[in-house]
Amino acid sequence: MSGQADRNFPRALLSPRSVALIGASGDEAKNTARPLRYLRKHGYQGGVFPINTGRDEVLGEKAWPDLKSATMDAGEPIDHAYVMVPRAAVPGVIADCAEAGVVVASIYSDGFAEAGEEGMQFQRDMVATARAGGVRILGPNSMGVVNVHAGLGLSTNAGLEAPDLIPGPFSVISQSGTALGGLLSRGQERGFGFSKLLSIGNESDLSVGEVVNCLVDDPDTGAILLFLETLRRADDLAQAARRAFAAGKPVIAYKLGRSDAGQRMATSHSGALAGPDEAATAFFRHHGILRVDTLEALLETPYLVMGRRLSRTTKARSKRVAIMTTTGGGAAMVVDRLGLAGVEFAEPPDTVIDRLEPLGIRVGGGSPVVDVTMVGARPDVYGPTVADLIADTGNDAVICVVGSSAQLRPDVAVSPIIELGRSEKPLAVFCVPEAGESLKALSEAGIAGFRTPESCADAVCACLNWAPPAPEAAAELAQGVKALLANAHGSRLDERAALTLFEALGVASTHRLVLRPGEAAPDGISYPVAAKVLSADIAHKTEAGGVMLDIPDAAALMKAAASILESATRVHPEAEITGVLVQPMETGLAEALVGYRRDPVAGPVVVVGAGGILSELYKDACVRTAPVDRKTARAMIAGVRGLAIVAGYRGLPEGDLEALADVIVQVSKLALDDGRSVLEAEINPVVIKAKGNGVVAVDGLIVLKGIG
Amino acid sequence: MSGQADRNFPRALLSPRSVALIGASGDEAKNTARPLRYLRKHGYQGGVFPINTGRDEVLGEKAWPDLKSATMDAGEPIDHAYVMVPRAAVPGVIADCAEAGVVVASIYSDGFAEAGEEGMQFQRDMVATARAGGVRILGPNSMGVVNVHAGLGLSTNAGLEAPDLIPGPFSVISQSGTALGGLLSRGQERGFGFSKLLSIGNESDLSVGEVVNCLVDDPDTGAILLFLETLRRADDLAQAARRAFAAGKPVIAYKLGRSDAGQRMATSHSGALAGPDEAATAFFRHHGILRVDTLEALLETPYLVMGRRLSRTTKARSKRVAIMTTTGGGAAMVVDRLGLAGVEFAEPPDTVIDRLEPLGIRVGGGSPVVDVTMVGARPDVYGPTVADLIADTGNDAVICVVGSSAQLRPDVAVSPIIELGRSEKPLAVFCVPEAGESLKALSEAGIAGFRTPESCADAVCACLNWAPPAPEAAAELAQGVKALLANAHGSRLDERAALTLFEALGVASTHRLVLRPGEAAPDGISYPVAAKVLSADIAHKTEAGGVMLDIPDAAALMKAAASILESATRVHPEAEITGVLVQPMETGLAEALVGYRRDPVAGPVVVVGAGGILSELYKDACVRTAPVDRKTARAMIAGVRGLAIVAGYRGLPEGDLEALADVIVQVSKLALDDGRSVLEAEINPVVIKAKGNGVVAVDGLIVLKGIG
Repeated sequence: MSGQADRNFPRALLSPRSVALIGASGDEAKNTARPLRYLRKHGYQGGVFPINTGRDEVLGEKAWPDLKSATMDAGEPIDHAYVMVPRAAVPGVIADCAEAGVVVASIYSDGFAEAGEEGMQFQRDMVATARAGGVRILGPNSMGVVNVHAGLGLSTNAGLEAPDLIPGPFSVISQSGTALGGLLSRGQERGFGFSKLLSIGNESDLSVGEVVNCLVDDPDTGAILLFLETLRRADDLAQAARRAFAAGKPVIAYKLGRSDAGQRMATSHSGALAGPDEAATAFFRHHGILRVDTLEALLETPYLVMGRRLSRTTKARSKRVAIMTTTGGGAAMVVDRLGLAGVEFAEPPDTVIDRLEPLGIRVGGGSPVVDVTMVGARPDVYGPTVADLIADTGNDAVICVVGSSAQLRPDVAVSPIIELGRSEKPLAVFCVPEAGESLKALSEAGIAGFRTPESCADAVCACLNWAPPAPEAAAELAQGVKALLANAHGSRLDERAALTLFEALGVASTHRLVLRPGEAAPDGISYPVAAKVLSADIAHKTEAGGVMLDIPDAAALMKAAASILESATRVHPEAEITGVLVQPMETGLAEALVGYRRDPVAGPVVVVGAGGILSELYKDACVRTAPVDRKTARAMIAGVRGLAIVAGYRGLPEGDLEALADVIVQVSKLALDDGRSVLEAEINPVVIKAKGNGVVAVDGLIVLKGIG
Repeated sequence: MSGQADRNFPRALLSPRSVALIGASGDEAKNTARPLRYLRKHGYQGGVFPINTGRDEVLGEKAWPDLKSATMDAGEPIDHAYVMVPRAAVPGVIADCAEAGVVVASIYSDGFAEAGEEGMQFQRDMVATARAGGVRILGPNSMGVVNVHAGLGLSTNAGLEAPDLIPGPFSVISQSGTALGGLLSRGQERGFGFSKLLSIGNESDLSVGEVVNCLVDDPDTGAILLFLETLRRADDLAQAARRAFAAGKPVIAYKLGRSDAGQRMATSHSGALAGPDEAATAFFRHHGILRVDTLEALLETPYLVMGRRLSRTTKARSKRVAIMTTTGGGAAMVVDRLGLAGVEFAEPPDTVIDRLEPLGIRVGGGSPVVDVTMVGARPDVYGPTVADLIADTGNDAVICVVGSSAQLRPDVAVSPIIELGRSEKPLAVFCVPEAGESLKALSEAGIAGFRTPESCADAVCACLNWAPPAPEAAAELAQGVKALLANAHGSRLDERAALTLFEALGVASTHRLVLRPGEAAPDGISYPVAAKVLSADIAHKTEAGGVMLDIPDAAALMKAAASILESATRVHPEAEITGVLVQPMETGLAEALVGYRRDPVAGPVVVVGAGGILSELYKDACVRTAPVDRKTARAMIAGVRGLAIVAGYRGLPEGDLEALADVIVQVSKLALDDGRSVLEAEINPVVIKAKGNGVVAVDGLIVLKGIG
């Protein structure tokens, strides 16, 4: 039956008809005793087969000595095995699973890839066994699977101690087992109902993306929440996220690793400017995944976006928020944070002004906040005013701030909002006091309630930044580029070869000629020029005395070339040096950097930054998943503060940013390289000339996948 | 008795022996009925005198028609009146209060300064009446005063509906009445006990600072929490904060207005670089106030810092945090945020490594996190390990992260931490799951527990950045500067006069001479030079054709001077033009900007930024309350990213940053100007020469308080 299993795995993973608990302990104090208890506690109706080689009974239930005997008693293969044996016993158990027709094995055992090279080898071998036997693996190092609707507490996570689990539309995949329990307990307290919760473990076989894919097809799942420590197999996630988007199921991610500077790549400047976390943000954005920054927003965001149908054409171009409040100070907390995030505010429409004026409430006149403190949460005012704001096309989201009534009159405080029902317009409700009951009432109505001004602002920003997945690239890499890549040697192109490749991509590059050692400068050079050592082996040319600028004439050039070669050879005796590259001194209004990188985590990205050392200090760059279209390229340029100086700032001359956008588009096409041979590419600087005069690539770098 | 009242006001404000409720309503639905109910509900034992002109009974209690008759029945003056009458009746009531010997009147009524010019005039008149009669005013627009220990619910805030109030060491002053209730309800839910809560209202008389001062003397207050929308009368707060620090009572502020770009001053570049909120941050720091960024951290921070005695000598030079956890994912959430804030981490000491090794737990080796997941919250391991970390001098704060046990075994999860007792070392506990009981147990033990990774990181950062109040400036402004200021005319000094004043402060300025209209260039000028129109009336010289650079010789200078004068006169026919200022072209390694401003909100500040247009785009500046010492000036320079290029970055030549620090110190001395006549001063640019060669002020601006 091996090989057949795969097609059934989503059901066996999420809604198994029967489960085996391999290594189930009879000692209640042990974590491995928990799954049996949790299955019973939460009313799982399928077959449960504890397997314990040492005893025929655990926690008062019959136990089987092995999977084979359990399967015989079951009369059919068991869908899903939860494996809780020591690492050394795991390969044997997986072989047993294959033999017995188990479709999915979730592995709690640890000591695999997370435990160094030996563990990694163990993991590889185990996966090979599983693949050969048609068994899909969740984990290892997984705290299991919960299906709330089915009472399936197939988990060692203590969060399952909760007396009741609230069924609902939230499904969670977590790379941290403990976080899974944290989200479950926090969500339950807030009245959020869950469908599936999975601890993904090491992703030795099933990846986050594959499980997202299963959840897209799960009718009980309405939103998919990801707790991520890193990205693994991002392509799986990209495809699954696109399917989820098409199915109207928002995918929301909270990802750690924002501050790990140690991960940053250092080969190119663009690597330093835009590390793995910026690449991950670009990845999420590109594939229609919302990223939140605060833990609680992961739980609080779904109702803000569920049921909202974004399309590329209706995508909001602006981010204008309308605010309604029964407390000025409360509204100010949210407004303040939204302002920090660059959100704009919408003044109330005439309908609201006219409605409130007879009550003596003046709104508008420069303030975005509709403050009805004077009448409080009066149902005949509050509800219709919120309805007016929701109906107003002048805003893109509405936030309601509720004061003390949220704590004291939970029955009435949020009812005018709840009675309006869910709408297409994102609606967020922030309660200023401790207001558990009001927040629960909102959750039950499927309306997004927020406990802190910070998570409210975080979620609203994520919602406003949300865009449909970018269209999948249809274009092909130009034949000329393909040919150059196919013929490239070594792992690093020299500057001349790099510029030639950028030219093949359609990027205008500066004129250049090469003086071989001893060769005389030809006539017809237009001075002044720059000269640099030409060698793929020398990364830091300036430090090696390999660069001279503003060379005024042929005699000086000959002298410079000799000096450069002498110095470079002395500093890098091992380097293969082709000669000296001679280029005109290009001048323009500003410099930029355009980079490309195949990020090992988040896939291909393109980066644009302002040129020069200050931009490096300020880490002023914008990164997106490649390839990008021209519209995105323009948005990237607008996202680099330092490039404002050539975009009309303070009446300064404008640079040819359309030509720069074109370079970004062309360089981003390296993502279409099927062979994935380009690891990094960078043009630094791109000299930006005045509007209409184009841009020119002056220096370039290309790193290829080494052969072998 | 007027004039005597003042000395008693702290007691009458916080712990009155008797209160009058002027305008107390008999209609339970009205806010003005609440104070009587709250006083009874929470067991206030003092005299309570409802005053209602229309009825002799409210809510079943005797009411008096006026304050006079109530005072007669009381047999002595009533300490504190809460005034809840319409605005028009307030002046009469205040006169009655003065007459009857009331010490403090808290005013709930609104329509005063917050309601425009007419209300402002009303407020001024009312305060004048109160001052004349010796009555101190809290408000208007105040939701009153709560003294939890005395059961004094003298407030219209619905937060007092809570069945019981927990007494404790937290006192709160809020500029938002609703936020007061929000903090009370959130704090109660967490088991935080309160002492006093005050809604400060419009601060027409009693300011936040004066009330802080009262709380310093309140034996039941251990920490002072401020919810601020702005700063008013910052000098009061500065002095009170210093007293609070000396008394060991931390003052912690959450302040809105972080994103209000509209408030920013625009006259000088430094105004644009460092607006009112940066000035407020500098103010808090200067006076030993902790500033938190998230709402919940306001409540969660006190136990992190209470009882901690900072001194200027023991001030931690580094910010190294040690982390202990029973869940890797949970620790990562906090570490990630701390990393974003630039906090460093401390590896565990040998004591911890040696303690855990026999248990098979390996820690250290590059990771700061002590992860005891394997043994969980085992009391014989957890407690002693935390004790080791607390004892370690290699860290400055310890964070304990607790996983699922915090939810499920609140009795044991945090007990190893609680049993250690409070220590001098800041100790923060973050609970990953929903863990209300564990958090309450921590609160009861006076240990700082945190509900979110964001507020935990926020509070720990605030704690690590906390420093004692800066010593009060003893120095005087130099006589030469005083004389220049005394003789200055107009509201703006021209560039020459500004540079002369900076020279008097001890700042090296560039050589300069003035060519009057028609005057010939004298001999002895060392070319090239720059020429600029000299006029206090022309702010934007370049736009007026009033600046020419790189002038090579005398002939060109004469031509340039004529052109500058012609153009400037044409563009600004109204301007008084002295002539043309001629200066050498100063060159250096980089440029900086040094500014001074008397911020209307936060008082005198000094600013240093990198020079040039990019720095303006990046808003790259550091601001501190002036005056500053040399050590602080050095720290400010280190806080400007763009100045890194002359601080040894990538082996580039170093600039004379000691000389720049000296300029900052000298310019900051303008804060010593008793007449407060300098509103703004700026040197832009200061040209930074190579190390040892000093710096030179090239262009300057000084704005004086206009006369009349």
